[in-house]
Amino acid sequence: MDINHRRSQNVQIEDYLGKKKEIVDKSLKKYIPPKDIYPNQIHEAINYSIFNGGKRLRPILAIAVCEMLSESSRKVLPAACAVELVHCSSLLLDDLPCIDNDDYRRGKPTCHKVFGENITILASYAMLSLAFEIVADNLNINKDKITKIVASLAHSAGSKGLVGGEVSDIISEGGRCNRKILEYIHMHKTAMLIEASVYIGAITGNADKNELKSLTKYGRDVGLAFQVADDILDITSSFKKMGKKTKKDAVLKKATYPSLYGIDKSIKILQKLKQDAVSHLVVFGKKACILEGIADYVASRTN
Amino acid sequence: MDINHRRSQNVQIEDYLGKKKEIVDKSLKKYIPPKDIYPNQIHEAINYSIFNGGKRLRPILAIAVCEMLSESSRKVLPAACAVELVHCSSLLLDDLPCIDNDDYRRGKPTCHKVFGENITILASYAMLSLAFEIVADNLNINKDKITKIVASLAHSAGSKGLVGGEVSDIISEGGRCNRKILEYIHMHKTAMLIEASVYIGAITGNADKNELKSLTKYGRDVGLAFQVADDILDITSSFKKMGKKTKKDAVLKKATYPSLYGIDKSIKILQKLKQDAVSHLVVFGKKACILEGIADYVASRTN
Repeated sequence: MDINHRRSQNVQIEDYLGKKKEIVDKSLKKYIPPKDIYPNQIHEAINYSIFNGGKRLRPILAIAVCEMLSESSRKVLPAACAVELVHCSSLLLDDLPCIDNDDYRRGKPTCHKVFGENITILASYAMLSLAFEIVADNLNINKDKITKIVASLAHSAGSKGLVGGEVSDIISEGGRCNRKILEYIHMHKTAMLIEASVYIGAITGNADKNELKSLTKYGRDVGLAFQVADDILDITSSFKKMGKKTKKDAVLKKATYPSLYGIDKSIKILQKLKQDAVSHLVVFGKKACILEGIADYVASRTN
Repeated sequence: MDINHRRSQNVQIEDYLGKKKEIVDKSLKKYIPPKDIYPNQIHEAINYSIFNGGKRLRPILAIAVCEMLSESSRKVLPAACAVELVHCSSLLLDDLPCIDNDDYRRGKPTCHKVFGENITILASYAMLSLAFEIVADNLNINKDKITKIVASLAHSAGSKGLVGGEVSDIISEGGRCNRKILEYIHMHKTAMLIEASVYIGAITGNADKNELKSLTKYGRDVGLAFQVADDILDITSSFKKMGKKTKKDAVLKKATYPSLYGIDKSIKILQKLKQDAVSHLVVFGKKACILEGIADYVASRTN
């Protein structure tokens, strides 16, 4: 692929992401209780944590999959917002003093720095509840599909999903890690929720059995690629670009791809994951160009 | 009612509660991942927090309502367990150092004392997720009803339910409280989830519109009675009986019924709530004797 073609493809995907982000933000505004509802503190904390310049990768993936399958993005929007809520709620916990102890997220003080630990923990809990409430109340699709979406979202957030990955990450700090554990952490902490986003788009878009299989594989590889890129960026990027403290993983002796494989091999693993992700899209032909572009974007992101 | 009749009714209801508790515990065991699943810490913390001698009032209410409506208790069990999970997950947060800072719960060290704050917060989050997963995966009823149950459970746990009550409780500490706020706290922090338990039993038991209305009113009054009794017990009971620190509310200047109305009036309010609860059951005639007994038990409990 020549450089000019790639550049024009990048512009196209960034344009797509920007437009869809606007739609997601607008939709989130509809579902999140406004700041001035009593008790204000909790609704201020929730709004602060959701409207903070997030890229909305997960909901956009759900939308992109749904649209590729010729279904309107409006249909998947409530579930797409629910995934973003689960993601944002998990970040609140991630940043807590007793977990990663981060003072900044996306360039702004973390929620507990502004609202205190108690409100932050309760906001995270409320956001997780709200995700399921939105899915149950607003998703205008077959109830059988709603039940599947609730199950998938709940599973990917729980002790055999995101929380499992988070706990494994915590207990592996300090160097007690190997390849198997590293893969467990990345798969559970990051990839499963991204896979769930793709699954939700696929279910809403009436994917058949084979399409669903290919798409969830794509979602898993994109999810893993996202986390490997994150590991690499922690070393190669800066606070200014990332909006959060970098170079932390090495200090905490975190289990990461660069710590286990070195930077060069990690970059190769990342490229391989992207190729694998794209390979699962072959069945969709040219219709999959947006999903290909997202995989590329995730693997080459700089923040 | 003569004393002997009342005594025999009490024995009957305690027998009922004991038997149903066993069924709930057995069912919970089926749904909770065993302790030895990786990462063990999280599953140990979850098991520790759920199997700690809880009375299982909420799931038993769901079962009792479902059975009164001539539906098998088996049908409602997954959703009944889900309510208990939401309840237990909320207690983990309630006891945290940054919230109520309690060292004991049901006579045992609180979860964060045993597993640390990070694992406790993540366990609470995972238990809330698991509640929805259980409902979506195991409830063998019409999918439309499952969606209603998810919505009700999510709403009663969120920022306009349990979390809202918790936050209001936190910000009212130190004495800035009035009747309106006190009612808000009790309704949201406690009554809504108890009402949801009754609602879940009613939906699963195919209650018609009027039955549903009466039952949710009953649930709300039982829920409020439960919290007023709790407020009174904090003053009149002991660590030995309650399994947790008592006489705390006054020290923290918590918003409670006794602090606002005094003990005598609080007891009268409690009796009135019980009578109101029972009055909503008239439409069910003698079939409601178990639900009447539960209201009585809640209002006269000693731990």
